[in-house]
Amino acid sequence: MNFDFGNLVCKPIPWLQESGEEDEIVISCRIRLARNISNVPFPNRASSQNLTEVVERVQEATERLDQLGDAIFLPIEELSSLESRILVERRLISPEFVQQKIPRAVAFSSDEKISIMINEEDHLRLQGFGVGLSLSTVWDELRAVDDGFAECLDYAFSDQFGYLTACPTNTGTGMRVSAFVHLPATEMCGEIEKALTKKTPSGLAVRGFYGEGTDVIGSIYQISNQLTLGWTEWRIIEDLIKVAKEIVDKEDKSRQKLMNDERIRVEDRVFRSIGILSKARLLTSKEFIEHYSYLLLGVNLGIISQIQKSTLNELMIITQPAHIQRLYGSSMRALERDVYRAELVRDKLKL
Amino acid sequence: MNFDFGNLVCKPIPWLQESGEEDEIVISCRIRLARNISNVPFPNRASSQNLTEVVERVQEATERLDQLGDAIFLPIEELSSLESRILVERRLISPEFVQQKIPRAVAFSSDEKISIMINEEDHLRLQGFGVGLSLSTVWDELRAVDDGFAECLDYAFSDQFGYLTACPTNTGTGMRVSAFVHLPATEMCGEIEKALTKKTPSGLAVRGFYGEGTDVIGSIYQISNQLTLGWTEWRIIEDLIKVAKEIVDKEDKSRQKLMNDERIRVEDRVFRSIGILSKARLLTSKEFIEHYSYLLLGVNLGIISQIQKSTLNELMIITQPAHIQRLYGSSMRALERDVYRAELVRDKLKL
Repeated sequence: MNFDFGNLVCKPIPWLQESGEEDEIVISCRIRLARNISNVPFPNRASSQNLTEVVERVQEATERLDQLGDAIFLPIEELSSLESRILVERRLISPEFVQQKIPRAVAFSSDEKISIMINEEDHLRLQGFGVGLSLSTVWDELRAVDDGFAECLDYAFSDQFGYLTACPTNTGTGMRVSAFVHLPATEMCGEIEKALTKKTPSGLAVRGFYGEGTDVIGSIYQISNQLTLGWTEWRIIEDLIKVAKEIVDKEDKSRQKLMNDERIRVEDRVFRSIGILSKARLLTSKEFIEHYSYLLLGVNLGIISQIQKSTLNELMIITQPAHIQRLYGSSMRALERDVYRAELVRDKLKL
Repeated sequence: MNFDFGNLVCKPIPWLQESGEEDEIVISCRIRLARNISNVPFPNRASSQNLTEVVERVQEATERLDQLGDAIFLPIEELSSLESRILVERRLISPEFVQQKIPRAVAFSSDEKISIMINEEDHLRLQGFGVGLSLSTVWDELRAVDDGFAECLDYAFSDQFGYLTACPTNTGTGMRVSAFVHLPATEMCGEIEKALTKKTPSGLAVRGFYGEGTDVIGSIYQISNQLTLGWTEWRIIEDLIKVAKEIVDKEDKSRQKLMNDERIRVEDRVFRSIGILSKARLLTSKEFIEHYSYLLLGVNLGIISQIQKSTLNELMIITQPAHIQRLYGSSMRALERDVYRAELVRDKLKL
């Protein structure tokens, strides 16, 4: 394992720099599939030997897949705690995955569009990512990987229930479809609760910035399906696209309303954020995201033109705590990180 | 009366741009003398005819005084409400003076160092102003005016009590000595209460930014004597200088401590204030003063060199509500003022 984390942390997530459907409001989307190997106990019941075999079988399968020809394969126990946290910050692995103490590994394509966690809650957690609301492209790419694995690995599948999973709430399609939506105007108009209370056949879950049970920061909400059983994959994706588009439409109308009625207040918020980010000497992650949110709104509303969206997206990734520490050398205290983060942001936003 | 308010509102208070003792911490100082004319009832008891006569007698005396050769004499009832408020914002008259509905006038020297309110609580309220802790210079100048008036006007004076005043708390010297002190570091170190609880023979009163009963804004405190009876003028002034110097000394030590232990936090506050003031599109008076406070600290600590103290002092005066309205035309709503204030500040701070 000779992966260059130093190179990883100084670059943005490649696919996040592309453009995609509804990308003025939908930041990114993700599809996750839970899969297990037949006749091997689920990770929470399996022996260490079982799990080591799972890692080996998935590694072999990965090497044989054309779609994952350039994939990076990393056993988690060979990573430092800082390196694991870098992968969490890039959403390639889950925070829970880092905590576990069993044989585990992650494989991800060099463009970071596909990642596979091995021995998380299930033997395999396949994830596909895309910019904006490009869920059908993401699904095409992820399905190809899933089909490839299905040929090499004997998936645990029941004709009655579909894919079998460690937790019954994932059984069936094993699919969770998510979109990260940026809703500052809906918030400012005081209509966020109404906008996010939607009824959909596959159920709508709304989460904060870092997933379940976390706060909403920077007006970014994660919306996803709740049910995985009883619906086809396409139906679940279509449901989420439909509800996401309603939310996007509401945000769009709120933005227009604000620009008509309270343009000066919006401009004030956007320019203050520029002022703070280009001058602050201390900056927490949370505060950065809050100002990022206003800058992103400013760029999307044409209030500011001197800052590129790609710069904002890059900063969003590389200002995270583990990234900052790897970028500037080694592990550091929160105050030091805040100093370096402020420096990095000032430097990148230099107008 | 053909006084040019348009010219007044676009310039800083002249004496505030000078330098003076302890002016890194003491912003300005003031001495006020309460005087009344013998055998004329105090303003709250006098007839309108009495009061008109007082105005006329003081006007005559003013014209004969060399020290007030270029003084501006303005009957308050000839001023618009906006014009009166401009004089309040420049501290030439008190807010209470504007509210009264009796014959009144104000005289002030063109350098704004001396002002005389006629028929405020007393027949005469003489005020002398100076930068920093220049109380002895202020006293020399104010005493010369007081002596001059004493020759033309028959002051109400008792050998037993001293100068007689409408309110007994002013009887004796009729003197209130004040200093406006800027104590951000003492505040940041959490020692403000201790620093301002001082025992002095003539009593110490601590007030907020706009005088009695007002909030502290921008870490600016007004300290002044409470007792006016039983002490000579010099003793009262010396007492206040002594206590002011103790407070200055404490602030000085707190600034050094912060610069040694928490320099980055101080710099962060100062630079954020630059960022906000140079970018905001809406700015209330109160918020301006809060950022002015950090910028003034930054200039005095050598953290910033590209902004002049004179620019800050100018903005402190001309960003006040009545000034803004006169500068940009006419009376306007708070939101409009906030827009123009932000514009004016951005313009003046252009780096």
